[in-house]
Amino acid sequence: MGMDLKETRIDGEVAFDGRFLKVTRDRITLPDGAETFREFIRHPGAVVILPLFDDNSVLLERQFRYPLDKVFIEYPAGKIDQGEDHLACAKRELQEETGYTASNWDFLCTIHNAIAYSDEHLELYLARGLTAGPARLDDGEFLETFRATVPELLEMVSSGQITDVKTVIGTFWLEKIIAGNWAPGKTCPAPVTTAQSPS
Amino acid sequence: MGMDLKETRIDGEVAFDGRFLKVTRDRITLPDGAETFREFIRHPGAVVILPLFDDNSVLLERQFRYPLDKVFIEYPAGKIDQGEDHLACAKRELQEETGYTASNWDFLCTIHNAIAYSDEHLELYLARGLTAGPARLDDGEFLETFRATVPELLEMVSSGQITDVKTVIGTFWLEKIIAGNWAPGKTCPAPVTTAQSPS
Repeated sequence: MGMDLKETRIDGEVAFDGRFLKVTRDRITLPDGAETFREFIRHPGAVVILPLFDDNSVLLERQFRYPLDKVFIEYPAGKIDQGEDHLACAKRELQEETGYTASNWDFLCTIHNAIAYSDEHLELYLARGLTAGPARLDDGEFLETFRATVPELLEMVSSGQITDVKTVIGTFWLEKIIAGNWAPGKTCPAPVTTAQSPS
Repeated sequence: MGMDLKETRIDGEVAFDGRFLKVTRDRITLPDGAETFREFIRHPGAVVILPLFDDNSVLLERQFRYPLDKVFIEYPAGKIDQGEDHLACAKRELQEETGYTASNWDFLCTIHNAIAYSDEHLELYLARGLTAGPARLDDGEFLETFRATVPELLEMVSSGQITDVKTVIGTFWLEKIIAGNWAPGKTCPAPVTTAQSPS
């Protein structure tokens, strides 16, 4: 990298402490020495589960998302509790939302969904060896589940029926995995602070 | 769909009106009749440009993102001004950030990146027939550009070097387009309010 792109924190405050959202406002120094402010959501991070059956079909959810006033097609997902292990969270969320447990778990990737104004990260896991059981939805949580094939999901991505980023990305990963082009090799998340290629 | 999943607004307020972020807090009715609150960011939406050269290499940016204290690899992108046409915004942002203009534009898809707490939508465009020119970065905007091939970018996605969702999704779309599997056919965005398949 040629340019120094880094922005440096001077000081900051909690600008908004709502029921669900927390906004931090930091005063910062830009690369050219000028001062400005950055506001962003502090988020605990979340897990996303790609539940893949032995016949290569996939378990999904329909859930109403209030900010966009619309039902979305999504993979099971949920916020990481404070101090919770990511894989333990993935197992908990899959069971709570769908009732399914899985005998075979693989970490796939970390994604960042709103880098301009949120520190949220999503940890994607592949879940295989699925066994049905009773769901235990949180109070105030309403969703329904359905099964689809990866070709059906890819068609929904290309036609605009699936627009949720974790679901678009999870579907592309599943295509690569089922085709044998990408192997789910890692069993624990990559370190959060590095983004180096292993090569 | 079996269940009624819809949540209905009762009333609401601007809970936080910051320098950059605006948070709405609405009181709502859940599908079972219970009342609760939803807080979410109001966002004007953004465009993302996939600049594809005749040799199938792609133009990208490195940009520091303060919430995650890290330089990200990204496609050119920017917020839609109030009332601005999406395609006009894509042309403006590509030229401002990279200096490039393009003779051939295709709308690819809309994605939603934070459906639990933001109404942000991102409109992805493919830009071909590229011609270099001078960049005109906004005050306080610092970035550098570079070129890479789609196979190189896919390797960066699978290895965790690229984690920004618009860049992950744009790279998968470019692979489909270059392989001839998905055609960029639409020249204007799909209607915002429908998510129906054409079939």
